[in-house]
Amino acid sequence: MSSESTLLARLRHLATHPAARGLADDVAVLGDLVLTHDTIVEGVHYLPTDPPESVGWKLGAVNLSDLAAKGAVPSGALLSLTLRGDDQWEERFLSGLAQIFEHFELPLLGGDTVALPEGAPRVLGLTAIGKAGPSVPSRTGGQVGDRLWLVGPIGDSAAGLALLTDDPGATGLLVDTYRRPIPLLAVGALLAPHASAMMDVSDGLLLDARRLATASGCGLRVDLSALRLSPAFIAERGQHRAARLFAATGGDDYALLAALPPSFDPLTILKGTSVNIACVGELTGDGAFALADDFGPVPLPERLGYEHHPS
Amino acid sequence: MSSESTLLARLRHLATHPAARGLADDVAVLGDLVLTHDTIVEGVHYLPTDPPESVGWKLGAVNLSDLAAKGAVPSGALLSLTLRGDDQWEERFLSGLAQIFEHFELPLLGGDTVALPEGAPRVLGLTAIGKAGPSVPSRTGGQVGDRLWLVGPIGDSAAGLALLTDDPGATGLLVDTYRRPIPLLAVGALLAPHASAMMDVSDGLLLDARRLATASGCGLRVDLSALRLSPAFIAERGQHRAARLFAATGGDDYALLAALPPSFDPLTILKGTSVNIACVGELTGDGAFALADDFGPVPLPERLGYEHHPS
Repeated sequence: MSSESTLLARLRHLATHPAARGLADDVAVLGDLVLTHDTIVEGVHYLPTDPPESVGWKLGAVNLSDLAAKGAVPSGALLSLTLRGDDQWEERFLSGLAQIFEHFELPLLGGDTVALPEGAPRVLGLTAIGKAGPSVPSRTGGQVGDRLWLVGPIGDSAAGLALLTDDPGATGLLVDTYRRPIPLLAVGALLAPHASAMMDVSDGLLLDARRLATASGCGLRVDLSALRLSPAFIAERGQHRAARLFAATGGDDYALLAALPPSFDPLTILKGTSVNIACVGELTGDGAFALADDFGPVPLPERLGYEHHPS
Repeated sequence: MSSESTLLARLRHLATHPAARGLADDVAVLGDLVLTHDTIVEGVHYLPTDPPESVGWKLGAVNLSDLAAKGAVPSGALLSLTLRGDDQWEERFLSGLAQIFEHFELPLLGGDTVALPEGAPRVLGLTAIGKAGPSVPSRTGGQVGDRLWLVGPIGDSAAGLALLTDDPGATGLLVDTYRRPIPLLAVGALLAPHASAMMDVSDGLLLDARRLATASGCGLRVDLSALRLSPAFIAERGQHRAARLFAATGGDDYALLAALPPSFDPLTILKGTSVNIACVGELTGDGAFALADDFGPVPLPERLGYEHHPS
């Protein structure tokens, strides 16, 4: 047993309460509340050169994205803020956090501020609390035959990060998407009552889709050609197989992945909206992971996404 | 305006929801739930040489102490765990966390595990959620004439830390108290319905008592001679004025401080228990902070406790 699975086994041993959903989900469901906590680390989840405002925005966004995937309405948050004595950075960080809190009407309810030793990378945490809708889809409810619908473009954020890695001064739409992802709260709330399973895509579509399929006890078929890449992504990376594989494994997308019964067409409830949504595959009964595009089967890449944490 | 107060003003601007209690409290109160988040940092809140089990215990204890001060019953927690690739440390940390979770019947509901860059100090966060009792005393409700009751010994933890600073191999009761504080959940729940105001003493009695008095719009009188020091503390530090000032400003006590109306004697409901409780002062109408002992007035020390964070 790897150390990662030992750790996860130990955590699961503490998480026997039904509200924990066996730690198989990104959230806990306690009464009519949905709770999630995501932490971001300087140099791991964001670049030390990112504008502090965008770091504040991103901390809010990654947590709200977990609420979006459960169809929950944001009702409050607790902030864990580490201080390094750089008042200007901290001020600008809080103004970015304020921006996303105000945009999504998320009140700050409390939290903690602590000093960091000199030179330590910042660690920023948020607990977001939402009010559950009529149903809170887990990762585990997918059924054989369910269609997999992807909401939101993928690949833009990873392409933006690649641009910034080459040139820390890079700008443009892709960089903006990396720095300021948009949590898809409205669509999440619309889809949740119809979804057998739903999660946000944060570590790469292929990795997260496999997690959903595995948690649901299903196999998986994904069609790379069905991805709706953004014009900015296509202009930067093209849209051939390699570009599509890059998009499907890049991570940091904060898109939504919903398993919906074949009888339900989400376009009926999203008519008139400009939501980027596409059916990108289905859950299968054979336990395998089949990847294909218009030209035929595609070998699974070695890396399906970011496995930077064990749960 | 100092940078700390600018930061706090900015946070308060985000915290207009009544559940936030104006960030004047250590908890948020959302419906019948009490929520708190405390973060501890290696080298700031614990020693890098502390046994990992005790760090896990302490992370649980500091959060449960906030629930205790509000009379709440623990109902679940979300863990933010940073990993540095030291499997053995992390395993031992989790076993200490498991110990306190099991002791106080606190189920793990979820959270996040993230990788840290090499060499970064660990930052460990916990969001604890409790069920509110019949009333949730804040810091702000104290009334002129209320008696200040202190539950639990103070000074032991600071004396333990001083021993460890001199000799990292030190052992004994004081060191144990520093490493494994006991959250006073049962007494907290008994006192909460009677308290005008209550909080836990984590940054030093004098500092926290002043915070309670200020939040309540009152002055304050504290009698150092009334402190019930533990035998282990007295053996190490004595019980003269200097020792009592050390105990009253040391911090890390996780004792409870309750403002109770003079008509209510807490000993009536604590009869037959072995709780360490003493009346150590009162809230006054003159806005001043008067410190005294059996020998007369005591000048306020320059440092009342640990002001290591702005809220």
